[in-house]
Amino acid sequence: MSRTDRDMVLGVFFNYTGHHVASWLHPEACADAGVNWAHFKEISQAAERGKFHFIFFADWLAVRLASEAALSRSSQYTAHFEPLTLLGAIAAVTERIGLICTATTSYNEPYHVARKFASLDFISGGRAGWNVVTSANPAEAWNFGKEKHYVREDRYDRAREFVEVVKGLWDSWDDDAFVRDRESGIYFDPGKVHTLDHKGKHFSVRGPLNVPRAPQGHPVIVQAGASEFGKDFAAQTAEIVFVAPPDMKAAQGFYADLKGRMAQYGRSPDELKILPGLNVIVGETEAEADAKYDFLQSRIHPQVGKEILSTILGGVDLSSYDIDDPLPELPDSDEAQGGTRKFVVEMAKRENLTIKDLYLRLAGARGKRTIKGSVKRVADEMEEWFVEGACDGFITQPAYLPGSMDDFIDLVIPELQRRGLFQRDYRGATLRDNLGFKRPKSRWQEKTT
Amino acid sequence: MSRTDRDMVLGVFFNYTGHHVASWLHPEACADAGVNWAHFKEISQAAERGKFHFIFFADWLAVRLASEAALSRSSQYTAHFEPLTLLGAIAAVTERIGLICTATTSYNEPYHVARKFASLDFISGGRAGWNVVTSANPAEAWNFGKEKHYVREDRYDRAREFVEVVKGLWDSWDDDAFVRDRESGIYFDPGKVHTLDHKGKHFSVRGPLNVPRAPQGHPVIVQAGASEFGKDFAAQTAEIVFVAPPDMKAAQGFYADLKGRMAQYGRSPDELKILPGLNVIVGETEAEADAKYDFLQSRIHPQVGKEILSTILGGVDLSSYDIDDPLPELPDSDEAQGGTRKFVVEMAKRENLTIKDLYLRLAGARGKRTIKGSVKRVADEMEEWFVEGACDGFITQPAYLPGSMDDFIDLVIPELQRRGLFQRDYRGATLRDNLGFKRPKSRWQEKTT
Repeated sequence: MSRTDRDMVLGVFFNYTGHHVASWLHPEACADAGVNWAHFKEISQAAERGKFHFIFFADWLAVRLASEAALSRSSQYTAHFEPLTLLGAIAAVTERIGLICTATTSYNEPYHVARKFASLDFISGGRAGWNVVTSANPAEAWNFGKEKHYVREDRYDRAREFVEVVKGLWDSWDDDAFVRDRESGIYFDPGKVHTLDHKGKHFSVRGPLNVPRAPQGHPVIVQAGASEFGKDFAAQTAEIVFVAPPDMKAAQGFYADLKGRMAQYGRSPDELKILPGLNVIVGETEAEADAKYDFLQSRIHPQVGKEILSTILGGVDLSSYDIDDPLPELPDSDEAQGGTRKFVVEMAKRENLTIKDLYLRLAGARGKRTIKGSVKRVADEMEEWFVEGACDGFITQPAYLPGSMDDFIDLVIPELQRRGLFQRDYRGATLRDNLGFKRPKSRWQEKTT
Repeated sequence: MSRTDRDMVLGVFFNYTGHHVASWLHPEACADAGVNWAHFKEISQAAERGKFHFIFFADWLAVRLASEAALSRSSQYTAHFEPLTLLGAIAAVTERIGLICTATTSYNEPYHVARKFASLDFISGGRAGWNVVTSANPAEAWNFGKEKHYVREDRYDRAREFVEVVKGLWDSWDDDAFVRDRESGIYFDPGKVHTLDHKGKHFSVRGPLNVPRAPQGHPVIVQAGASEFGKDFAAQTAEIVFVAPPDMKAAQGFYADLKGRMAQYGRSPDELKILPGLNVIVGETEAEADAKYDFLQSRIHPQVGKEILSTILGGVDLSSYDIDDPLPELPDSDEAQGGTRKFVVEMAKRENLTIKDLYLRLAGARGKRTIKGSVKRVADEMEEWFVEGACDGFITQPAYLPGSMDDFIDLVIPELQRRGLFQRDYRGATLRDNLGFKRPKSRWQEKTT
């Protein structure tokens, strides 16, 4: 089968006012997106008309730590809706699009997480997905009675056990447990409910879950992170992996590596979709795209630019440097930010870039590439990545909302459909159906058959 | 001011298939209500057409502990939606009705609870309410890594601190913190965000909350429970108290007691609505109501009846008794089930009732009174309680859904409106407005003015 026999998967990341650091300053952005339900209703329905496979929300359990000067100019990562209540609402006003959000394993309990995603799966008729993260923001710890964030190994260990417990809880009731037979008066078959009785290192959870088995069996498991732990965890467990490779070569390497690890867990490469974040600024012409991009770039405040560059480099303190200084010497590290620091440092040296040059290049898309230009240029690059084994699709990160997503729907999606790369309509009822995934059997069903 | 110058407050309790233990067996009940979103959309919109002040959901974090024989015949307290995701969805398809659900302080973290209710308040435009409970079901502990439920004093102590932290987090941002000024590039005024820095016995929570101050300032605080702790906590903190007095005299005593306690906390009696649960079976005629009631009663299975009687009596083991036996001698206790056991034991003695007689009388409404009959009879009794200082309104507990709520909306509400007791339309935009409550000032605003 040629690579283009399969469908490109496209999700859309709703980062409130948009993904660009200056998004809210654009006149076509909804500045109060973080608390504006009408905005989310509108963009969710628009995304569904665009046939996106899913909507994606990041999440974190604290206001971002940043300098007052930078933070007070930012519309993202400060204060806004909680995504599970918001996805409940979005489920009620959409019919086909998948609904994915983040819940951390570090400051949650598996019973709550299992319940809420199963509940969202019922409300939405099988469209829920859980993005599993272990948190990176130390401020989250302070809101949950801890002085420090878990060290990496504990965090991962807890995450592994957490996901196992959640999946066990999702199998508490057999699919056919609820007979609701008015003749006999039997509501459910007591032989078809299972007590998990999990006793592990981090959690003791008896079960059963007080939600029936979800329409999808298990909501779709999503994961991000390119660390060694992340790759193994993804190979074993994830069904969507959200990645941010610096270029196509890195993406191809990651793709081959991760798909290659799946066999050892008895999984086929088709059971996992690898989706890079995609930042697109598109216009009917190159000039139109340039104008949009230049406007946003012109509105990046130096404090915000320095702050985000510092974050992209893994928390390097740039406060004593002028924005026209060259990037200072930094300890090299393959690990910092999943290789992003190394990539940025090399680029700065190679091209002799100042701090301002760098943040202008990186801040808009938060350290990731931006494809800018005409419809043809954008579609060509997406097609190339897809056909050349760099990805199974993308998670688009609109620079500002609703404008950038509307541009993508109006211009890029029809071109991808014309090329036979992207679905013209949803193929099934559930997110799993639309991703071409099978519905997982219950662990109890596997045992008895 | 005469008592009828104020409006009767009416809420409706959505106990999935309905409140009667045999509700799901009624042909007009939605048997799979627990996972049927279309059902909830329909009944929520119907409740709004009926001008109910709010919808109410109970919640618990475990499948109920009960004998297999009884549990497998029950549609409630087993497995169904999680209420905060469900209320998110209901918020999206309603416009005026209040949205209240339970979250326990025993197996939650204040940061999560503060966030989710604030988020629901934004989604709904100011219609959220939080029913604060401390949990009573020991099975909840087992799902959260504990072998036993907290002892009562710890539970209450934790609850008190929990609510204080949540209210503090709700005041993290001043109402006018988000300026979103495109000219200056300032998104929020950093002088208007406050770090809570709470360090208490049960919780350490730094804040700020990552949700702006909610439309209502604070979502409405609801509480149930008639214990001494419960009454003091309610007098200090609650804005709605959900009660279940056995008769009007008890209700009047409770009402005077609780309202009388408020002054010591600097509150006016008008700042709290006391709402008994109300079980109504109504028909155009007495005979029609009797027929509905008799059908439900005829479908109570003896195992289910015995089980619920046992629960009403505070966990008394009745398994060795025949349903035609008289109620065995029980140790008297004012405390057991908030006085309900004492009331039931006295009634059984006085009227010489068998176990079956008792469960038939009590199981339908879960130990509470049922008003059965014509519209006039129901409205008269509601008016009497309201006028005679027994309550500020009611939380109706439809026996089966949607049928019993439809009857109430079609028959009782027009009669209450005709009598000038109940609103013909919503008076304001938020739940607080509709209850006649002021929007609370922020603790930071109080300090600076």
